[in-house]
Amino acid sequence: MVSLADFGPEVRAEVKQVREVVASLHEQLVKWNLVVWTAGNVSQRLRTADLMVIKPSGLRYEFLTPSSMVVCDLDGNVVDGSESPSSDTASHAYIYRHMPDVYGVVHTHSTYATAWAATGREIPCGLTMMGDEFGGPVPVGPFRLIGSEAIGRGVVETLERSEVSCGADAESWSFTVGRDAEAAVKAAAMTEEVAHTMWAASQLGDIIPIAQEDIDKLNDRYQNVYGQH
Amino acid sequence: MVSLADFGPEVRAEVKQVREVVASLHEQLVKWNLVVWTAGNVSQRLRTADLMVIKPSGLRYEFLTPSSMVVCDLDGNVVDGSESPSSDTASHAYIYRHMPDVYGVVHTHSTYATAWAATGREIPCGLTMMGDEFGGPVPVGPFRLIGSEAIGRGVVETLERSEVSCGADAESWSFTVGRDAEAAVKAAAMTEEVAHTMWAASQLGDIIPIAQEDIDKLNDRYQNVYGQH
Amino acid sequence: MVSLADFGPEVRAEVKQVREVVASLHEQLVKWNLVVWTAGNVSQRLRTADLMVIKPSGLRYEFLTPSSMVVCDLDGNVVDGSESPSSDTASHAYIYRHMPDVYGVVHTHSTYATAWAATGREIPCGLTMMGDEFGGPVPVGPFRLIGSEAIGRGVVETLERSEVSCGADAESWSFTVGRDAEAAVKAAAMTEEVAHTMWAASQLGDIIPIAQEDIDKLNDRYQNVYGQH
Amino acid sequence: MVSLADFGPEVRAEVKQVREVVASLHEQLVKWNLVVWTAGNVSQRLRTADLMVIKPSGLRYEFLTPSSMVVCDLDGNVVDGSESPSSDTASHAYIYRHMPDVYGVVHTHSTYATAWAATGREIPCGLTMMGDEFGGPVPVGPFRLIGSEAIGRGVVETLERSEVSCGADAESWSFTVGRDAEAAVKAAAMTEEVAHTMWAASQLGDIIPIAQEDIDKLNDRYQNVYGQH
Repeated sequence: MVSLADFGPEVRAEVKQVREVVASLHEQLVKWNLVVWTAGNVSQRLRTADLMVIKPSGLRYEFLTPSSMVVCDLDGNVVDGSESPSSDTASHAYIYRHMPDVYGVVHTHSTYATAWAATGREIPCGLTMMGDEFGGPVPVGPFRLIGSEAIGRGVVETLERSEVSCGADAESWSFTVGRDAEAAVKAAAMTEEVAHTMWAASQLGDIIPIAQEDIDKLNDRYQNVYGQH
Repeated sequence: MVSLADFGPEVRAEVKQVREVVASLHEQLVKWNLVVWTAGNVSQRLRTADLMVIKPSGLRYEFLTPSSMVVCDLDGNVVDGSESPSSDTASHAYIYRHMPDVYGVVHTHSTYATAWAATGREIPCGLTMMGDEFGGPVPVGPFRLIGSEAIGRGVVETLERSEVSCGADAESWSFTVGRDAEAAVKAAAMTEEVAHTMWAASQLGDIIPIAQEDIDKLNDRYQNVYGQH
Repeated sequence: MVSLADFGPEVRAEVKQVREVVASLHEQLVKWNLVVWTAGNVSQRLRTADLMVIKPSGLRYEFLTPSSMVVCDLDGNVVDGSESPSSDTASHAYIYRHMPDVYGVVHTHSTYATAWAATGREIPCGLTMMGDEFGGPVPVGPFRLIGSEAIGRGVVETLERSEVSCGADAESWSFTVGRDAEAAVKAAAMTEEVAHTMWAASQLGDIIPIAQEDIDKLNDRYQNVYGQH
Repeated sequence: MVSLADFGPEVRAEVKQVREVVASLHEQLVKWNLVVWTAGNVSQRLRTADLMVIKPSGLRYEFLTPSSMVVCDLDGNVVDGSESPSSDTASHAYIYRHMPDVYGVVHTHSTYATAWAATGREIPCGLTMMGDEFGGPVPVGPFRLIGSEAIGRGVVETLERSEVSCGADAESWSFTVGRDAEAAVKAAAMTEEVAHTMWAASQLGDIIPIAQEDIDKLNDRYQNVYGQH
């Protein structure tokens, strides 16, 4: 079995730094009301080796520390850590293996994103910040049982079909991806915010759609021009 | 009248530890928005004696300390403590006497769980995390007046009829049970979260039900396989 | 003009203590999401003189201190304080002059209580904790312009007509009263909570009413038996 | 290119003070739930020179400091600061050039204000505090793409057409203005609060309108008589 000692100092240094980043980003899940109790998890893929750092299973958020984060390979095998990794580890690993630009994955059950998913509806694109961040509606993926890589496969299929840069939403869960864990957490926070706003708008009346050419302009500016997003 | 001095050092040590646990779990009720003002209460049954530790009546959450927690026997008589026990004590005691696997009970009036109850509707099972945690819809129990064990009797009947592992909800109150107080508080937080999500989904359109065989698989994995839930 | 120096040491001691109580209770308005920015105010009547202590006008909550609280007589004239009193002072004073058992008054624009009021609907009594605290539906008073005692007159008429022990709600504002300021703040928090829950229930379907004789039993137990409410 | 060294000590002193004010007001956007992640921005125009201080682009709220605030002229050119200014800078600048009484501008995507905007509906005036603060319904402006002064032009047209003293709301964004940045942040918080309340009321039934002459009295008293608003 592979252990962290089999890797060089550059990898071990990145592991240390990414453990701090991933532990700290879990606080943002609580801050922006994306999770309850132990639900939800964040991971980040390393740049220096085919490894990822992910939340341990079942620990309450106030007890998460950098050293409790688990290091796994991209098949989901534990490489370092005293806790068991999240039960969504196989799905995170599947996403990293199949989406080479993705270095951050976040899974939540945030309230309004999940409400749309539970009715099988995509979230319509009626907000400029959806054009900015997602480039279109937030799609709904298929129902899949937890515990294997099946959910990860559903996320990859859904994101590729929709050609959205990040932000997936399938029945009763929400997955977002990004170029690092912070970008994926931001996408998760934005997904819940637009899910809430579009939900509230849907109770008032018809949502005014944004023309696709305007969505494309918004997304292009935000993803390519806007320096520090 | 029985007092704590009639019990041995092992029991007195467990009382001290459980008072800390129960006091601290009340902070979680506030953190996850399950209570307002002095509403809501948590108790835990001891392992070393037929006693339970419960919140005092009418104290504001910021004034709760381990030493203000009240020790009662399983008929609800006070054994130790300078405050009066919660006015729901008889119902907690009834549950412990009739559900021998239960060592934690939580009562709240959390907003969305109570909203479902006030219309007499069970909360439908349209979320994987409901399958995980509850193994089916969250049932609604009968209306009962407070101040005797009648509410506790309603909870026991409702949970046994539904064969759910935890999570009961009857008109204008929510009771959850678990293998300790932390598990029951977790169930209370999950009950409110799924009540909120299913409520929001119900405003969008039809909720897609999860097939019972999938619910059974989710619940079995979560309750039996998932190590640290 | 009367000043605090015209009163004896017992009154000045009560003023000092009530200023601390009233300042500190404003934090509870923020904690339970009852106010935004500078909206909302709390007052308490003294036991030792015909005076009241009330929030200054227009100060942000983080800048409130005991010494910034304003002392007025029961006609709303300032007796001590360097700030102007709340623009609702005349209405608080009117309530104290006409309801001799009332020693605490709270005014908020809390979201869901105000939503019911804006449609002219009373909040139906479908929750045991409404029976406990209010003894019936939360009534809606008449529309009145701010700046005179007109709103206070509307509150007194509404509470007397409904025979509820506390908790009034009229178009676009919420007033609650109690035997001290803390009881009135508690009533304000409970009003918003039941307004939110009954609102959510109304979106699901018909609310199951509680029989009036059960409401009466709940209210009697809570107001007369329950020791520390 | 102009730099801060080209201005005298009075201007440099005001820049220092306004940087503190603007940085600190961003905390209020988080406190009152008006923003998520890096969305939203506050600016204030100087009294001593044709300059403004605005939030840097893309920084998370917990990392904002006075020194990270950017100083721009009223065409949006950077005069001082190591960060890029908000991508809404040109719109803030347009508003200051065309509304000479305005010295504070706030932009958010707050949930319920944006929900009304996404359906093209103005927020009806059914609350006394809307009469106080806004003097009428909150209007909806036109859809405009971000990145130029086009949004600012939409805000100015919308506010002038409606003759409201502050508070504009257009498709998928909310802009508020005031006599300084604090007044504009207050207007943003009030806009979201009344948007939430009027939204909740609209789900219950018909909102009772306030007569225009009463709105005018409320607004006149609040804007002209009420000392410390």
